[in-house]
Formats: sequence, structure tokens, C-alpha cells
Amino acid sequence: MVPEPEASGLVTLTTDFGGQDHYAGVMKGVIAAFNPSARVIDLCHEVAPQDVREAAFLLKASYRYFPGGTVHVVVVDPGVGTRRRVLCVVCAGQRFLAPDNGVLSYVLAEAGAWEAVEVTESRFFLPSVSWTFHGRDVFAPVAARLARGVALRDLGTPVWDPVLLAWPEPRVEADGTRVGEVVHVDRFGNLVTNLPVLPGGYRGVRAGATEVGDSRTSYAAVDEGQVLAIIGSSGLLEVSVNGGSAERVLGLGRGAEVRARPGRAGQAAPGRGETT
Amino acid sequence: MVPEPEASGLVTLTTDFGGQDHYAGVMKGVIAAFNPSARVIDLCHEVAPQDVREAAFLLKASYRYFPGGTVHVVVVDPGVGTRRRVLCVVCAGQRFLAPDNGVLSYVLAEAGAWEAVEVTESRFFLPSVSWTFHGRDVFAPVAARLARGVALRDLGTPVWDPVLLAWPEPRVEADGTRVGEVVHVDRFGNLVTNLPVLPGGYRGVRAGATEVGDSRTSYAAVDEGQVLAIIGSSGLLEVSVNGGSAERVLGLGRGAEVRARPGRAGQAAPGRGETT
Amino acid sequence: MVPEPEASGLVTLTTDFGGQDHYAGVMKGVIAAFNPSARVIDLCHEVAPQDVREAAFLLKASYRYFPGGTVHVVVVDPGVGTRRRVLCVVCAGQRFLAPDNGVLSYVLAEAGAWEAVEVTESRFFLPSVSWTFHGRDVFAPVAARLARGVALRDLGTPVWDPVLLAWPEPRVEADGTRVGEVVHVDRFGNLVTNLPVLPGGYRGVRAGATEVGDSRTSYAAVDEGQVLAIIGSSGLLEVSVNGGSAERVLGLGRGAEVRARPGRAGQAAPGRGETT
Repeated sequence: MVPEPEASGLVTLTTDFGGQDHYAGVMKGVIAAFNPSARVIDLCHEVAPQDVREAAFLLKASYRYFPGGTVHVVVVDPGVGTRRRVLCVVCAGQRFLAPDNGVLSYVLAEAGAWEAVEVTESRFFLPSVSWTFHGRDVFAPVAARLARGVALRDLGTPVWDPVLLAWPEPRVEADGTRVGEVVHVDRFGNLVTNLPVLPGGYRGVRAGATEVGDSRTSYAAVDEGQVLAIIGSSGLLEVSVNGGSAERVLGLGRGAEVRARPGRAGQAAPGRGETT
Repeated sequence: MVPEPEASGLVTLTTDFGGQDHYAGVMKGVIAAFNPSARVIDLCHEVAPQDVREAAFLLKASYRYFPGGTVHVVVVDPGVGTRRRVLCVVCAGQRFLAPDNGVLSYVLAEAGAWEAVEVTESRFFLPSVSWTFHGRDVFAPVAARLARGVALRDLGTPVWDPVLLAWPEPRVEADGTRVGEVVHVDRFGNLVTNLPVLPGGYRGVRAGATEVGDSRTSYAAVDEGQVLAIIGSSGLLEVSVNGGSAERVLGLGRGAEVRARPGRAGQAAPGRGETT
Repeated sequence: MVPEPEASGLVTLTTDFGGQDHYAGVMKGVIAAFNPSARVIDLCHEVAPQDVREAAFLLKASYRYFPGGTVHVVVVDPGVGTRRRVLCVVCAGQRFLAPDNGVLSYVLAEAGAWEAVEVTESRFFLPSVSWTFHGRDVFAPVAARLARGVALRDLGTPVWDPVLLAWPEPRVEADGTRVGEVVHVDRFGNLVTNLPVLPGGYRGVRAGATEVGDSRTSYAAVDEGQVLAIIGSSGLLEVSVNGGSAERVLGLGRGAEVRARPGRAGQAAPGRGETT
């Protein structure tokens, strides 16, 4: 049994709705209608349409910074209108509401213990459920109740087999080289890789065909416009350009190969612009 | 007399301000200054510049999902700085504040009964009103007071002749075929039409020059990349592509013709991926 | 000594994070974790990457519309990871938290009196501070405390030499002509200049190589698609196109020269569509 946290009254939204429509705003209207004291935080509405892995990554990078008892709602839902399940999960002291398409995979893998139900209690839905907008008709009214403390077991029946997507683990070569890939490209064109931060950093980083050098701790460690590898804020190695976009400069995107050898802890002396 | 609802303390904003400027943020600052307990929900700030009909559509698709007594503010206002009126309207248990340019038309048509005033009481405005940013100087401070319960009649004088834009009703041909048009294109490239959902759905849908088949209830009813007609979430028929953009695949946009024949209720058997 | 305002509980965010990532959302999670009653307003997240002057402009155009005691947080921070200072400033009855890169310059110049500290008290930071995301690890947790009333002097040591960027003052020629420049281009393609509004307006405005005529008070003073100069909402002259984009029509952007001669107060008769 995973203990259910007390509701914080906070709801986050992660969707692929973008900003040009009323979709996210209407979800907030429904949440307010069923729980006037819930507070809603937009985590991201610009997930690429139906990009389940991108939403999974954003959630993994974010959830632990929210107060215990927060309800994280994800509506990236290519299967809306089919028999795909809607899941509610307790883990890491928080609650998650999402379609059963793997979008919670990275969180579940990190959290270890979790408990899940399929949300079937339609008395918590809007009276009329559309075929295409469960964000409004199912997720929002259920989230409003979760933010008020409704318990997991009241929403439906236990689920032990959620759809799980594997986090792409880097491969280790005979000489210790890690072979990873770009898992996210952010607004600045930083290439976030799946190479976990190591105490000694990385040496000889290579992104696609470009030698990037050893990992640094400050963009200013290289000249403006130059490529560098940097210890990113999500605990992952990133490939960046000081004052520019690595995506554009290197012409690389998600899935691109990034190779690096583990550094030795304590070895690297801080370079220019680095504060160790 | 339309009864005035008790204020919910909720204000929604629908504007063409986009996200790159301070305009929407400043409106929230003014609202907070005049009513610290008001809560603001962004309905949409990405309305195309001065696109009154788009804002009217988004509002029509949204308002009924908000708690009674919500104040809906629309600032899509090509006539700012001219003598165009500012209206406050009570209808459907909610309140609306907008320039008198037809942006409330679809809501008023649906609601039936309404009551309106021209907002003239400048004591509710900012002390200095600019020529170009009434969102900040007029709409925000008035909305703050509305969210606190100030009554319609305190804002100005009754108006019986607001600017009204007709909802584009589909034409019915001799054989019963409905001839409608695309009234909104959403982020996913779904083409939302003005053809209202019918109990029996639609048969033989045709979007521009493309035969789309009968209306379905799930994107998954067709193969990925294929076009389909689907019962949309706003009670209107939509033309979509499973996992893609109908706007891009069909090369159609707002105003494009969509034709369909009413289906017979109970006739259609649920297809693949449909849950009926 | 500048008196420190009582906290309003309001925090604004101005960043270059955009909307496609989790960065702004995570900052709100951290603020909620340290101060559940803080209310956050997005001022702007679409500042161009690392564009300190653009953020400085947006802040200058906005801060005075917020309640006293608001905390304005700016995270446009090309120097993150270097030894650049983090500043907290009291001025104009509000508080500002930003990297020491000049982003507060225009506010400080306007406010006159201010008091600043370098934020060094790391007990207010997250336990582990990343190299690249001080918005989450430093600014958000400090802002949460500021919104709860923590005093400036508790955050660090006084600073008297913040980085200051000069506001680009227009040049005055022998015949009285003001020679200014475009300092901001907004979503509508309005070219906001550094020419301050004068009681008599401006005559003979020229933007780049285009004669624009005298300043007007309504877009409708000219035909649709025509260029005009207009008294903008930030107290600055703007060059606009009625129903269109001056940026696109004139092909001008930030830095473009705009020339004009001061008008004589009371001289200009209101034109078509103007309401005096």
C-alpha cells in the first residue's frame, strides 16, 4: 500500500493543446466549477501534438519540485475516444491523472512504489462526455475532486499493468564510453541527453559528428557561439551553445547520438567562468 | 429583467495580445490592484489580431463550462480609440465585458435572454485612459469591480442594439444535404464546421473536394494519416486526420465548404476503435 | 533608506523560457512549495532568448500597474553559472529579484530612489543549486519568501553598483527634430519608439525612409492598411498600421530610426475616428 498524500489543492496541467484554442482554459473552468478553491498551474501546453514521450519527459523533470499532494494531470491522448483506460496513480507523495499510454512511465520508474486505479466512476465526469475532449469532460472534473481529497479507491478499480515506455538507457561500450541520445530539445536549442550526471562529469563528449570536449558547469566556459557539454538542470548531460542554439548550430534533434567517457571525480579544474 | 448572478470572483480573459508582450500580464496586475481576491483564467490570448469572429467562436465554445457569476472579458478590439461602445452583458447566469463589435454575438444568440449596458462610468476606469490599450485602462479595472459584485446598472446605461454578427447557418439543399463551412481550425489542424451534431450523425461528408465518408466517434476509426469526419467536442461536426492535421492534409481553412447528409439515428454500427 | 513595502503576496514572472518546456511551471511549483498562498502572474515568458533589453522594456512598461508590495522576478540570465550577482531591489513601493545584468535599469532610472542587496543567503535557495537553472533553484524559493514578507536585509549585503544599461534617449537636432529609434516591436507589429509623448503630439513623423504624418490618437484615423504614428499606451510614440503590422509593411525592427518634430499643444484638430 502506497500511502495517499493529503491534497495540496494544487493541480498541474500538461497537454498538447497549445495556446490558440480554448481547450486549456475550459479545463480550468470545469475545475473551478467543481472545486472553487483548487489552484491550477500550467506545466506545459506546448507538447507537440500526441507526443507522449515529450510529455513523459517534462513530467519526470518537474514533479518532484511540487508540494506533496499535488495532482498532476496529463492530457496528451492520441487514443481519446477508444477504449484506452484513464489512470489515476499515487506515487512519490503526489497524484497523477493521465491516459494509459505510457505518459507516466518515467515518473513511475523513478518513484519505485506506486498504486494505480482505472478511473471508471462516471459520476465524477461531466454528465455528457464527448468523443474527443476528455480533458474537459473526464480529466478536469476528476482532478477537481482529487484536489479536494477524493481517494484513489473511490475512482475505480486497481490496475497493475499500466502501459510502460522504457526510459532509453545509454549503452556502455567496452572502453567505458557511454552511448546515449538526445531525449529533449528545449526552447534555447539545448540538447538534453539521457546521460546521467556523474560526480566526475564527462570527458570527450561527442554530439553526432562534432567533438564537444569535456563537460563544463557554465555556458561562459566557452566563447559565445561555441558548442559545449554542460551539466544540465535535470541531472542529465546537455549539449549547448553559449548564447545560441545547439539544435541549430549542430543540426541535431531528438534521437541524435551523444557519446562520452565518464570523467574522474575531483579531476577537472574549474575553467574560465566556472564557479565549481 | 435578466437576473444578475452572484459574482464567483472568477474572471476569464480572451484577447489577441499573444504571449510576447506584457499586455495580458498588465491586465492581471490591474485586476489584482482593484480586487486582490479575484482569480483570473486565461481563456485564450492567441486570437489572430483583430479577429472578432474567432474570439466569438472560442467564447461560444467555452462559457457554459464556467461557474455561474464568472466575468468573461474579451479584448479583441480593432476599434479601440474610436467611439465604439464598451458593453457589459448579463446572460446565461454569467457576465461579459467586451467592445461592441459583435464578439458576444454567438453567446447572445444561444443564451436567448440578455441584458446589456454601455459602460460609461469612467470612475471605474484608470485615472488616465490611453488611446490604444483599453484592456488595461478600462476592461481590467471594470472587470475587477464586476468580480466583486458591482451591478450592471452601476456601470452605465441600457443598450438594446449591440452589434450582432450572424452565426453562419448551414444551407439545406432539396435532397436534405447540409452545406456548411469551416468556422475554426484548431491547434491540431482539426477543421471545426458549423454543422450541428445530429442524433444519427452524418453520411457522405465531403470537405472541399475530398470525400470523407460517414461521421465517426473516434480518430482511431481510420488508419493513421487518414481523413475522417468526427463528432466534435463543441457539438459540431469536425473534419480531422488521425494522428495528423486535416488543415495540412486537405489544404483547407476557415470558410472552406463542408457538405454532408444527415444520418439516421441508430443506424450506424460502431466501427473499429469506436466505443459507442 | 527606501521604505520596504508590505508584501502583497503577488509574484510576477518575466523570463525567456517560452512555453514549450517545463521551466516556468516548475518555478511556480517551487514558489507554491515555499509559500502556498503566493499568487503568481505571468508577465511574459516569450522574451527572446537572453534579450536583457527586451525584458527591461517590458518591466518598465508594466510594474507601476501592480499592487504595492508585489515581487517582480526576472529570469533572463545569460550569465547563469558564472559569478554574476543576483539582486533584490526595493523601489517604487515594489520589490524586484533579477540577475545583475542591467535588466532592472529602466525601472531604477524611473523610480529614482532604490535600495539593493546581493542575494547571498543560500539557506533560502534549494538545497542543491544547478549550474543552469537558477530560476528554479534560487529565484523561485527566494521570491516565495519575499512574497511572505522576508526583508531585503535578510537576503544579503547592500549593493551600490548594479549593472545599469542606459535608456536610449532621443537626440534633439538644431531645428528641434527628435531623432529616436524603435525600442520594442509588439505582437501586432506596432513599432514602439523611445520618443516620449508630448502634450502637443508630434508632426512630420518619419519611420526609416517613410513619411508617416502627424501623430494621431486612433488607428481609425487612417484607412485600413495605412501607416500612422500614434500615441502609444506606454507613454511613447508608436508607428502602426491600421488593421495590419507596421513591422511587416515598413520592414523595420528594433533600432530603426524614427524622426519627428514636437507639435504645438492644442493645435491638432481631432481627425476622422478620433475622439480628442
